Amino acid sequence: MIVSYDGLTRHVMDILEKGLGYTESQARITAEVLVEADARAVPSHGVARLAFYRKNLEGGFAFTDREPQVVRETPVSLVVDGKSGIGPSVAAFSMDRCVDKALEIGTCSCVVRDSNHYGMAGLWAERAAKRGCMAVAMTNTRKCCIVTFGKERLLGTNPIAVAIPGSGEEMFLLDMATPVVAHGKVEVYDRRKKPMPLGWVVDETGSVTDDASHIEDLFKSESSLGGHLFLGGEGEELGGHKGYGLGLMVELLCSALSLGRWSPETFQEPGSGSGITHYFAATRLDVFGDESAIKDSVSSILESVRRSEKADGHDRIFIHGEKEREARERAVREGIELDRATEDMLRRYSDEFGLTQLEELK
Amino acid sequence: MIVSYDGLTRHVMDILEKGLGYTESQARITAEVLVEADARAVPSHGVARLAFYRKNLEGGFAFTDREPQVVRETPVSLVVDGKSGIGPSVAAFSMDRCVDKALEIGTCSCVVRDSNHYGMAGLWAERAAKRGCMAVAMTNTRKCCIVTFGKERLLGTNPIAVAIPGSGEEMFLLDMATPVVAHGKVEVYDRRKKPMPLGWVVDETGSVTDDASHIEDLFKSESSLGGHLFLGGEGEELGGHKGYGLGLMVELLCSALSLGRWSPETFQEPGSGSGITHYFAATRLDVFGDESAIKDSVSSILESVRRSEKADGHDRIFIHGEKEREARERAVREGIELDRATEDMLRRYSDEFGLTQLEELK
Repeated sequence: MIVSYDGLTRHVMDILEKGLGYTESQARITAEVLVEADARAVPSHGVARLAFYRKNLEGGFAFTDREPQVVRETPVSLVVDGKSGIGPSVAAFSMDRCVDKALEIGTCSCVVRDSNHYGMAGLWAERAAKRGCMAVAMTNTRKCCIVTFGKERLLGTNPIAVAIPGSGEEMFLLDMATPVVAHGKVEVYDRRKKPMPLGWVVDETGSVTDDASHIEDLFKSESSLGGHLFLGGEGEELGGHKGYGLGLMVELLCSALSLGRWSPETFQEPGSGSGITHYFAATRLDVFGDESAIKDSVSSILESVRRSEKADGHDRIFIHGEKEREARERAVREGIELDRATEDMLRRYSDEFGLTQLEELK
Repeated sequence: MIVSYDGLTRHVMDILEKGLGYTESQARITAEVLVEADARAVPSHGVARLAFYRKNLEGGFAFTDREPQVVRETPVSLVVDGKSGIGPSVAAFSMDRCVDKALEIGTCSCVVRDSNHYGMAGLWAERAAKRGCMAVAMTNTRKCCIVTFGKERLLGTNPIAVAIPGSGEEMFLLDMATPVVAHGKVEVYDRRKKPMPLGWVVDETGSVTDDASHIEDLFKSESSLGGHLFLGGEGEELGGHKGYGLGLMVELLCSALSLGRWSPETFQEPGSGSGITHYFAATRLDVFGDESAIKDSVSSILESVRRSEKADGHDRIFIHGEKEREARERAVREGIELDRATEDMLRRYSDEFGLTQLEELK
């Protein structure tokens, strides 16, 4: 089913507000974050996540009656207690204050404890970049990654998002989970009963496997063995220890600096919040020199990369964020395609909460 | 040949000062940086680099009579013009001032243009961490990496170093070049005439190859085709676009922010400096909370990672920086082993410059 960007946003807002008890502002930012992911062709972080967000409320991991609070502040830093509130609300609150301070003094870092899933990390870095700052957004997650020479799920998918504005509308927007692939890709191979590429995950012995169904079983079991390999894969030959280092860095910046919970401690006690932690940073470009000269330099490098020689069989080199930006433009113009499972979920929710069904785009 | 840490340091200082015309302070910091790399079992950045440092002087890419200068400053930032001086001197000058400012206000970022090769990036992050800050050090380099779907050497090896202090002597010290492997590894396979693991490099068509000799020929030719793949390897299946994103991020932070030269523009005109650019940042931990509580939290996470379940066939999980720290302790105690080529180079330099030969450790 193809639906309009605005129609889907309003519908998701309705579900959140009228169905799940979000406040209007919580519903607005959460709907925006979920629909933006679908519009950018990142459905793993899209509207399908409503089921997970609902489960978090019901499981006592997220609360609609809690508002984030700044608990420590210096001229260049903020510490936010998310109070186990709604993830995207906590993230918007934190990044917006972080940028306010960066615009004033030049830079600010912000760590957040006791928050919740905040959607695509890249959206938060981009939010700061739209106000003229270069920015970083990171978060830990439930445990699902294996460290080099380990076999136990320990660290989260711990994404790194970095936005650096170029001239005009241009922006370098890196948004990468630190493992090789997101868990959603394993689920797809499981559903299709196909072997995965080797190098994505390891089993309970710590060896690489292409068996997606077995990994799904492990993730649903009591065992914490088996899970995702970090970028670079198994061992050290192709740099797996580097990906593991990036994942561990994100873990330390989010959870240790905020004195919050690290990934294996998240989603433990119903009623006590998920304990997810974040790291944000924003810096004004003009602390380094003339802002427009820096933006021109960014754009000139990106353009030279685009124009460089293509590998045989390829006709385009992408800059990070470009594919998603083009998908978004298409989605705003032509609508967003929802898969069958997401469409069914929205129908069920509309029935359950007595809402008008979402209309197909003509 | 095995030599003492102190003996090697003094000898390298002598070569730099008496042979190459470095000032005493340039020679001291450069010798320290090179010997530290050998002591930490990272010989690619060790004393063997003296030949490259010399070539930089002779080629008009580095100058001993130039001192770095702060050309822009805000409460939270510094821009340094390296004046094409000696890389490790420029780096020490820049990171030390960056930490001075961070200790005062809480954080500082510093970009540097027109510098030179500064040795192992990790040493600069560690230098700041020893003064209590968490820190970042990055640099661009001559071009040698291929972007995803490209085939032209464009970006440098653009390393990322991050130091986060734990309690006591503990430190997380990530120091990773953004490609899969350093170029030194290709040279080793070329010398031994052995096929490389697939996934390190691509040839002039942009296809992966195991032929180290062919890659060496390409690097020495006029052609700029063929070179290193970024972490994650070829294409997108194993995340090569993520490694490319990290490499491009480093390039932008170093060269665009400093309004300096990006990797393809380095080492161009003899006499005009190499144009290498750096990015440094330092942040006091106590801007986020009680410093010792944060350090304890860092150490507790690292210890839990160490103690987690090992993959079958493995008995140890390493924290980043640990292998190098242990190698260094051994080297200080038992001496540093130089390979034959480095030993021969030192002998030739001693003869040429009329210096006493380096003594073997008894």
